[in-house]
Amino acid sequence: MRRTVFFISDSTGITAETLGNSLLTQFDGLDFKRITLPFVDNQETARSALSMIETAAAQDGARPLVFATMADPDLLDFFTRGRTLVLDLFRVFIGPLEAELGRASSHAKGRFHGMADNNTYDVRMDTLNFALTHDDGMSTARYPQADLVLLGVSRAGKTPTCIYLAMQFGVRAANYPLTEEVLTRQSLPKALVSIRPRLYGLTIDPERLHRIRSERRRHSAYASLNQCRKEITDAEALFRSERIRSLNVTSMSIEEIGSHLLQEMGLERRSY
Amino acid sequence: MRRTVFFISDSTGITAETLGNSLLTQFDGLDFKRITLPFVDNQETARSALSMIETAAAQDGARPLVFATMADPDLLDFFTRGRTLVLDLFRVFIGPLEAELGRASSHAKGRFHGMADNNTYDVRMDTLNFALTHDDGMSTARYPQADLVLLGVSRAGKTPTCIYLAMQFGVRAANYPLTEEVLTRQSLPKALVSIRPRLYGLTIDPERLHRIRSERRRHSAYASLNQCRKEITDAEALFRSERIRSLNVTSMSIEEIGSHLLQEMGLERRSY
Repeated sequence: MRRTVFFISDSTGITAETLGNSLLTQFDGLDFKRITLPFVDNQETARSALSMIETAAAQDGARPLVFATMADPDLLDFFTRGRTLVLDLFRVFIGPLEAELGRASSHAKGRFHGMADNNTYDVRMDTLNFALTHDDGMSTARYPQADLVLLGVSRAGKTPTCIYLAMQFGVRAANYPLTEEVLTRQSLPKALVSIRPRLYGLTIDPERLHRIRSERRRHSAYASLNQCRKEITDAEALFRSERIRSLNVTSMSIEEIGSHLLQEMGLERRSY
Repeated sequence: MRRTVFFISDSTGITAETLGNSLLTQFDGLDFKRITLPFVDNQETARSALSMIETAAAQDGARPLVFATMADPDLLDFFTRGRTLVLDLFRVFIGPLEAELGRASSHAKGRFHGMADNNTYDVRMDTLNFALTHDDGMSTARYPQADLVLLGVSRAGKTPTCIYLAMQFGVRAANYPLTEEVLTRQSLPKALVSIRPRLYGLTIDPERLHRIRSERRRHSAYASLNQCRKEITDAEALFRSERIRSLNVTSMSIEEIGSHLLQEMGLERRSY
C-alpha cells in the first residue's frame, strides 16, 4: 500500500523534508510517494494544498502523512482538520523553547531560509567561487588561503566534496588531482608541500571507482578495473609515505564526507 | 546572556541543525553559540559530548539547548539526565508514525544521510557535472538534455543556483551569460531559441549587483552602479520581449531561488 507524504511549509519546505525523510528511513520497505509544497503562506495556497491531500487520500485509500513547518497556527489548522496525520515540526518544540528562553516566539514565517543575513550569502558565494576556481588543480596561487586541499585520483569525489563544503559550511576547499605523473613520482608537487597540514586524501574502493568511471567512459583503459586498482594502490601509498590523513568514501554520502572532514580537520565553519 | 546550542546526532547532525536553526530564528535578538557534534554513536563519544555540554552550562550560567537526533534511546538518555533542555527530534514523532503505519521503526542510526542509495549518489554526481560543464555558456551542445537554462547578467547568481539545483534536487541546470553583445542585439543566441520553454531569467536590483561586483573588482567600470543599471534594464527588456519568465533574487537565499524555480517550472526532481 502506498502512502503519500506531503512536506508543507510557508517557506522552501527544506526543513520539513529533512526531518521528515530522516524519520521515514526508520520505516524500511514501505512505499512512500513524496510531494513538497513550498510557500504555502495564505488561505488560497493552503486550500489548494488541502485539496491535493484529499485527492491523495482517496487514491491511496490511506491517510497521507503531512510534515509541516508553518509559523502561522491558523494555516496549520487547515491541515489538522483534514483526513491526515499531521506532524507539526514547529509547534511541538516552540512551547518548551519559549519556557526555557523566557520569551515568546516571533511566529515569523520562513525565517531560516530567507536571506536575513547578506553576510552569510556573501560568504557562501565567496567560498563557492574559491572551490570552482581551485578545482582539479586549476590554480594553486591562493592555496595559502585554503582551509583544506583535497587530494585524490580522478572521480574519487573531490569536486562535489569541495562544493558541498563551500555551500554548506562556508569552508574554502580546493582540490588537486593525483595524476599518473604524481603517482609515479610518489612525491608531492611543490605547491602542496608548504600546506601539508591542510592536505587530506580521498580514497575509494577500486570496484566502485571502476563503476563510476565506466558510467562516463565505458570500456576505456581509464575505467578498467586494473587501472583503478593501480591508481588507488599508488594513491594510498603516497598518503602513507607523506603522512597525509585520508578517508575511504566508498559507502559515504557527500554529507557524511563533509561532516567527517569538518570534524577531523577541526575546520571552522563560516556559515551555519 | 549567551546560550550554547548543541546539535547532537549519531550521523552528520544536518537534520538536527536544520530544524534547530529554523526554531531558533523564531527567537530574535538572543545570543546563541552553535556547536555541532556529529557521529555520537557510542558511550564514549556520548560521554565526551556530555562533558562539553556541562562545561558550556558552567560558562554560560544557563542550561544549554540540545537538539538531538539519535536512533538509540540509551544514548539519548545520556543527555536527558544532564542539566540541559533536550529537544529530541526523533522520539516525539516516531510514536505517532509507528501507530499510523502499523509497524515498529527500525531504530537504525544515521540512515538518511548514509549512502543507502547509490543511485541517488550517481544522479547528484551526474547533474553536478552537468552544471559544471554547462556553466556560463561554456558549452551548449547538451542543452536539449537540460531541465532548465538560466539567463542573467554576470554575478546575478546563475552558477550557485545551478549547482544548488543539481546537488539538492538532481536537476540538470545550465546557465548562459547575458553579455554586452547579447544585450545590445536584444535577441536570443541561436542555441537558446530552440529550448525557449526551458529558459528562465534571473534579475537583481542594480544596487545589490553593484555591491556584489565591487567585492570582486572595486572601482571598475564593470562594477559601477551605472553599468549595473544599464545591464539590468537591458536584461529585463530582453526577458519581456522574448517572453522569458524571470525572478528577482535580490532578497532571496539560494534555497528560496531553487524552490521557486522547481515550483514555477514544474521541474521533476531526481533525488529527494
